[in-house]
Formats: sequence, structure tokens, C-alpha cells
Amino acid sequence: MVERVPNWLKQRAFLTPERPALFFEGSKWTFAELYEKALRQAAALEKAGFKEGGRIGLLVQNTGKAVWMIHALQQLGASAVLLNHRLTESELLWQLEDAEVAGVVYDPACRQLAEEMSGRFLCIDLSSLPLSEPFPSREEFSLDDTCSIMYTSGTTGKPKGVQQTYGNHWWSAAGSALNLGLHEKDCWLCAVPLFHISGYSILMRSVIYGMPVRLYTQFDEVEINDALKRGEGTIISVVSAMLSRLLHSLEGSYHPDFRCMLLGGGPAPKPLLEACAEKQIPVFQTYGMTETSSQIVTLPPEYSLTKLGSAGKPLFPCQLKIDSKGKGSPFTEGEILVKGPNVTSGYIKREEANSISFTDGWFHTGDIGYVDEEGFLFVLDRRSDLIISGGENVYPAEIESVLLDHPALIDAGVVGVPDEKWGQVPAAFVVTKEPVNEMELLGFCKNRLAKYKCPAYFITLNALPRNASRKLLRRELKAEFEKRQKKT
Amino acid sequence: MVERVPNWLKQRAFLTPERPALFFEGSKWTFAELYEKALRQAAALEKAGFKEGGRIGLLVQNTGKAVWMIHALQQLGASAVLLNHRLTESELLWQLEDAEVAGVVYDPACRQLAEEMSGRFLCIDLSSLPLSEPFPSREEFSLDDTCSIMYTSGTTGKPKGVQQTYGNHWWSAAGSALNLGLHEKDCWLCAVPLFHISGYSILMRSVIYGMPVRLYTQFDEVEINDALKRGEGTIISVVSAMLSRLLHSLEGSYHPDFRCMLLGGGPAPKPLLEACAEKQIPVFQTYGMTETSSQIVTLPPEYSLTKLGSAGKPLFPCQLKIDSKGKGSPFTEGEILVKGPNVTSGYIKREEANSISFTDGWFHTGDIGYVDEEGFLFVLDRRSDLIISGGENVYPAEIESVLLDHPALIDAGVVGVPDEKWGQVPAAFVVTKEPVNEMELLGFCKNRLAKYKCPAYFITLNALPRNASRKLLRRELKAEFEKRQKKT
Repeated sequence: MVERVPNWLKQRAFLTPERPALFFEGSKWTFAELYEKALRQAAALEKAGFKEGGRIGLLVQNTGKAVWMIHALQQLGASAVLLNHRLTESELLWQLEDAEVAGVVYDPACRQLAEEMSGRFLCIDLSSLPLSEPFPSREEFSLDDTCSIMYTSGTTGKPKGVQQTYGNHWWSAAGSALNLGLHEKDCWLCAVPLFHISGYSILMRSVIYGMPVRLYTQFDEVEINDALKRGEGTIISVVSAMLSRLLHSLEGSYHPDFRCMLLGGGPAPKPLLEACAEKQIPVFQTYGMTETSSQIVTLPPEYSLTKLGSAGKPLFPCQLKIDSKGKGSPFTEGEILVKGPNVTSGYIKREEANSISFTDGWFHTGDIGYVDEEGFLFVLDRRSDLIISGGENVYPAEIESVLLDHPALIDAGVVGVPDEKWGQVPAAFVVTKEPVNEMELLGFCKNRLAKYKCPAYFITLNALPRNASRKLLRRELKAEFEKRQKKT
Repeated sequence: MVERVPNWLKQRAFLTPERPALFFEGSKWTFAELYEKALRQAAALEKAGFKEGGRIGLLVQNTGKAVWMIHALQQLGASAVLLNHRLTESELLWQLEDAEVAGVVYDPACRQLAEEMSGRFLCIDLSSLPLSEPFPSREEFSLDDTCSIMYTSGTTGKPKGVQQTYGNHWWSAAGSALNLGLHEKDCWLCAVPLFHISGYSILMRSVIYGMPVRLYTQFDEVEINDALKRGEGTIISVVSAMLSRLLHSLEGSYHPDFRCMLLGGGPAPKPLLEACAEKQIPVFQTYGMTETSSQIVTLPPEYSLTKLGSAGKPLFPCQLKIDSKGKGSPFTEGEILVKGPNVTSGYIKREEANSISFTDGWFHTGDIGYVDEEGFLFVLDRRSDLIISGGENVYPAEIESVLLDHPALIDAGVVGVPDEKWGQVPAAFVVTKEPVNEMELLGFCKNRLAKYKCPAYFITLNALPRNASRKLLRRELKAEFEKRQKKT
């Protein structure tokens, strides 16, 4: 069996050195230039004491230097632990300790957070890292080596580190190209975070395909629409909230070379898809997650209109089935299971979670859906408790566990409720043992949770709806929220 | 490490059932139809006694049914031994016995050959094979399983069976797509034999890419030129002799969608490449062999003019180096070594050949070349003794061994000499112990060798030029041939 392939960036810089690799804020780097920057940064990391085989935290915004650093870690042979800079200090510390990182590289925008961690970890400022003499590059990558680690939470409340190997990224990139095609003109716009699989995977496709990436630090719908109208990108990855903002600010139409609006991050509202179809925006709905190294199910081009609302069929190397308790018939709802060489081999240091999540190579996504008579997937709900707010996954259990630490509360339940701007936001239902006001609870959360995880609503109840085995009935909380909204 | 992927044709028929898969003589089959045909043929094979895991000889011309059968063998889980129908009975019998096949499937055009083998092997006529009820299809392919076996000869005279796994074909197809791109409009014209890797690999790309193949039984330059002018194909695989015939019969220009003339099968004459450049024919020179599951080095599009004559750089998953006895500098000639997940794991039942041919994963091609200062490969000579005649590899040792069986000869040496139509043809130099005429020798060869291997010239010498260790000096034979040509 194949286990080794040429060092991707080295090979790409050798094969097509002059092709543009990266556009960022008016600057451009070819693959040869990107490779040289990555080697110099890798050398500087080694001088700083980082070693091959270790794990290194990366706390960066989307910038050109962050891209160099992501490649530098691959050149060094270290696994990158991608950190969400919207998390709080305590959340970050927890992940860094769990991953047993050798240190953290951060960029100036994240300095404050980094300073708070510098007592515990070797923290290196990306902007002050000297560009050393190039590092002697590795000839090959092992497909089994862990390339990146990203934390996702779950029902247990504690985030788990998802390992993505070089092989996972390779198969993901190849599977996507077989579905979307690969054109000489292709350029992928990246306005999603590099610390998420959606952004990170764009960089992997770039080097494997020999395709430039146009990177943005912030998502600004006017700026992106202008770029797409000028033909500065042929493909862009978005979540529903971004697409909605693009659509509403769009005047006129995109450049004819623009060919794919890759829509991930949860089920999209049908009216949004219909409005895009009307404006002839080529939306490709997809379904994927950190554990599948980005998309694993995507609607093939020829079905974008006839199967509106479907996430499509698996990528060529992947498989999908619905766990419908024996009923194999179409339209039967059940848990979505996926399988493929792009699926993670598991969570680091989580034996129990791994044994629960994988059965004969099938990954239990926890999400609910069905397939129609032709095998197209319709995702009904991301795992019943998951809240997707502006493309970020928010796990109720994590928020509940913070709330229960507050001395005034005896019970807490969190659900996602509709929000015009973010799609969903968390709403907290609490049972108190002594009086406490909303500001106090919000402040308590803000100290412990990323801002996007902090509840937008706090509602006090006498008791939470639970079933006989004490399982929280979140559906009833949602109904309660709706009822209260109607009243106001 | 990844070892299993979805059953390719089943997956393709599921993902894009209505896309055309195959055009042949006015008929068309979608992927769904091709899958159904393959399953029915697989069922018929099973009824005939063939089993999963065995090897089955395939003696067919390029036809629609041959394509069904190639897929049927994959559905059954048998390895296909692809037989060259231009070989003689004795050559074929040798390969079938070496491969220990369970039987042979042949098509009507090969009936005579098959009848001669039917005493030794179960031989089944493809045209009379009933289309049984569909075979229960396999869910997955193992990338380590042997998909196909093709025989190539070598300096030892006896052909060796090259094994290509599903993994080899996958990486070959993916590497090619990363280099050539993948367009929705793509359609690959196949006028090269399906029993060669050049043709067989087109079928694998078809099912992996979801791309139609337009198949031809014979290469006819007028027919192919017409098809390419009408836009009936975007890519075609050719060898120099075919390209030359296309070029000379071409009036006007190809359809604008035609984007790639993939030129393999040995170094191309520079004047031919220049003439193509002048006519704006997009020639992509490549280098590859049965052992590399088709191309392994291809000239990327942006260098097709500036590096005219070069075979290019390795495909993305592959590596190349020149064994120049320690001198690593550019322009130093030496044996071409290649490495990659598309390279065969070895020859069947040839331990010695395998240990000679592979060093640390590097395959010794036996061909001579150099790389320039930018790493572009220039192939100087296919292995010094190899003759390429009309795209077929001809091995002098094999012809010499036949000639030496003739009672009138005491020595024989074969070299390739230039030929306007075929590029090269074999010329035999013989030393006789009793008088024998050319017709007698030719007749002797025709009974034992495929027509294209039979010498076009017989030249009698008093002794062959050999060095002190009795090694034949083929260069001197070539010089002798040239000298004699000038005289006439």
C-alpha cells in the first residue's frame, strides 16, 4: 500500500514555480516564493526549539504570513493545532494542554490572548520571527502522518481534537476535484477562517491542484461581490449567513468565469437557494465537517436545480448511509453515517469517543437526514443539539456546563433559536436557587466562552422539561421560546 | 492507511447515472447502462465457472463489448490478463500459462487464435456470452488488489507480467487530472489498444472522472481528424506514428474544445513537434510505460512550446531521478529512475527481475535520459535495445532467440532502423552455417512472432560485432545498416 508521496509544496514549487499561489491584500506569491518563505519560517521555528513530530499551536487570523506558517509546519514535520482566536483564554489553554503542544505561534492580532498563555507555553510572535536561512526540506510526506488538528465539541461538553492526516487532505482534495472539475483559470476565494477545516482545506487544494488562493482576513460582502464581479475568483466557500449577505448586496451579476459557490456549514434555507437560482448564482450545497476534512457530500452540478435543498451525493471516494434501524427504504429518517479515506482516523486521546463514533470504518455524524429514491442526501438537522451561528458550531453542552458552575443556578438548558443575522444564536433556560440577573449571567459566560457561544437570551423557568431518564427535552425548550416570542 | 474505496463503476453509476460513458460505432451507453452490462456479463462469467480472485485472459479488439467485459472482470473481482491479439498462438500460450489463468474470453475477431488455445484453456466467446441476471455487485475495491496484468518483454527475451493494482490506476488517473485539468466537456478518444496500458488507462480515467470515452477499433487518421474537427473529443492518446499521420491528413483545424494531444510511446521526432506547434495542435509529450500504469512524466501545458522535445516533469504524486553514477548535475546522462504510487508493485512470479528493477521504491526503467537545469526530462533513448514500431514495443532479444532456433543460423543480432510509416522496424543481422534465403527466415519468424516483430530486413554478415565479453555491439549494427542504405 502507498504510504509516501512527494512533499507537496516542494513538488508544486518544482512543477509550476511561476504559477501564483496566494493573493493577499495587494501582494502576490508564486509557489516558488511560498515554498521559500515556508522553508525560512520552518528554519526559524527549528532555531526556536520546535521539532519534527511535535504539535504546535497556531493562533492566527487569515493573513499571508499565516499561510506561510501553515506550510512551514508541514515542512518542519510538525502537526498544526489550529486555534480559534474567538475562544477565551481558558478555552484555548484547555485545548493546548489536551494537545500537549510544544508551543504556540501567534500573530499580532492575537497578541493579548497569547500573552495570557505565555506563562504556560512557549509563545512566538509570527511578526517578529526572523526569516532564517532555508530549512533543508523533506523529500516526502507520509500519508499516515497527522498534518493538522482542530478541536470540535460534542454532547459531552469537552472539545475533542480531530486529527487530519496528509492522506485525509489528499483524498478530500482529489474527491472535490473529481466532482467540481479543475480548470486552468481556477482561483479559490477564502474568506472563511484558516483555523476551520473550510479554510485550511482550501490551502491544501491550492498546493495539490497548483491553484491560487485569494485570501481575506474578514468577510465583507461588498468587497467579495466586487472581486467576483471582476473575475478574481472562480470558486468560493461560504456558509448560509455569508451567502445571504452576498445575495442581498449583489447588484448586477458575477463574472462569467465564476463557477462555484460552495455552500457548507449546515442546511440552507430554501428561500435563499431559490433566490440564488433566480439570480443564476451557481450554488453547490455540501455537507461535511471537521471529521471529514471538509465536504464529503456535494450536489453535482447537473442537479443543482432539480434537487434544490439536497446536499447531494458522496464524493467519488466516499460513501454515505442512513442508520434507520433496519429500514433501508428511501425517505426514512435516521443518523447520517459516512465513510471514506478523507474521514479522520479519530480524536486524539479519546478512546471512548473513538469507539462510539466509528463502526467498521463508518463515522457516526450524529446528524439526522434521509436519502431520496435516487440517493440524494437531505440533511434535516445537524445533530439535534448543535447550534450553527454564523458558520461556527456551538455545542449546548459546553455552555450548559459553564452555566452550571454559576452558584445561583441549579439547572440549565441551551438551544439554538432563529436569528436574522447569524442564522441561529444560543438561548439559555435556567433554574435558579437565588435571584440573579441576566447581566450577571452574561458576564459570567463572557469570561469563560467565546463571544459567539454566549447566550443571546436568558429565560428563567421553575424546572426544565426532562423525560423519565432525566434527558433534557430540547424540543420543548424551543417551543417555549417560540411561544414567548409570539407574545412579545 | 486507506485500503478500500467504493466499487468504481457502481459508484459512478450511482453518482452520475445519466452521463454518457462510452461511444462506439454509433452506439452510446450511459454509466448506468455500462454498469448493468458489466454486472450481467459478470454473472455469465460466474455461471461459466470463473471466480473472484482468479486471473482471466482477455483476447479482444477495441469494441463496446470488450469495455463491458473489462468492467465485468472488475465486478467479478478477477484480474484481467490483457492479451495482444497481434501475438502468435505460441506467444499467447506462453503468457496464459505463466499467468495461470482460469480461462480466456475472446471476441469473434480473435476466434481463430482462441480455437488454437481451446485445447489448453476454457475459452469463451464474448459474442455468445448470454447476458445473465445482474451479478450482486461488490461494495468496495481494495486498492491493493490486482486489477490488470499486461506482459512486457525485456532483455532476457521472456515476457514478464506487470501487475497494476486498483491503487496504481487510481493514482495514475488522479495525477493525470491534476496535470491536465478536468473539464465538464471532456471526452477521451481511444484509438489505441485496450490491451495496452495506454488504452486500458483511458477506461479507468473514464469511470473515475465520470467522463465519456469515444472508442475506435482501428486507427484511421481521416476518421479521427473528422471527429476532432467536429468536437467529438477533447483529449486523445497517440504515439508518434499516429500523430504524424493525423498531421499529414489534417486540413483546416480542430474544434476549439479539443485541448490535448497526449503523445506517448517513445521520444518524438522534433520536426513533428515543430510542425504541430505551427498548426497550433496542443501536443503534450509524455513518458510512461506499462510498469507506471501509463504516463508518469508529462510536459505541463505552460511549457509545451518553450520545452519542445522534453517529456516534462513528473505527475504530482510521482518522482524522477537520473542515475548518473554520483554526478547529480543537470544534463548528465544516465538511467531514468521513477517512483510513485502508480508504479507497479512488481512482475508476477519474477523474484529476480523484481529485485533488480526496484531499489528503495525506485523503479529502474532501463531508459536513458537527462534532466535540464529546471528539472525537465529529456529521454534520449528507450532502453538501448528497445525498438518502438508503430507504438508497439519490440524487444530484439525475443526476435534473436527465435532466429537462433533456425538450423541454418549460428548467430543473430536485431536492431531498430528508421522507417517512414512505423517510426522504426526491426532489422536482423545473421551469421549462417549453411545457405538460407530471406523468405525462408521471414516465414520462420512469422510462424513464431507477431507480424510487427518480424524483421523488415535480413542482412548476412561473416560475424557479428561483439566486445571482449561477447556483448553484442548494436550501435555498430546500426552503423552498418546506415552504410548499406547509403550505398543503395
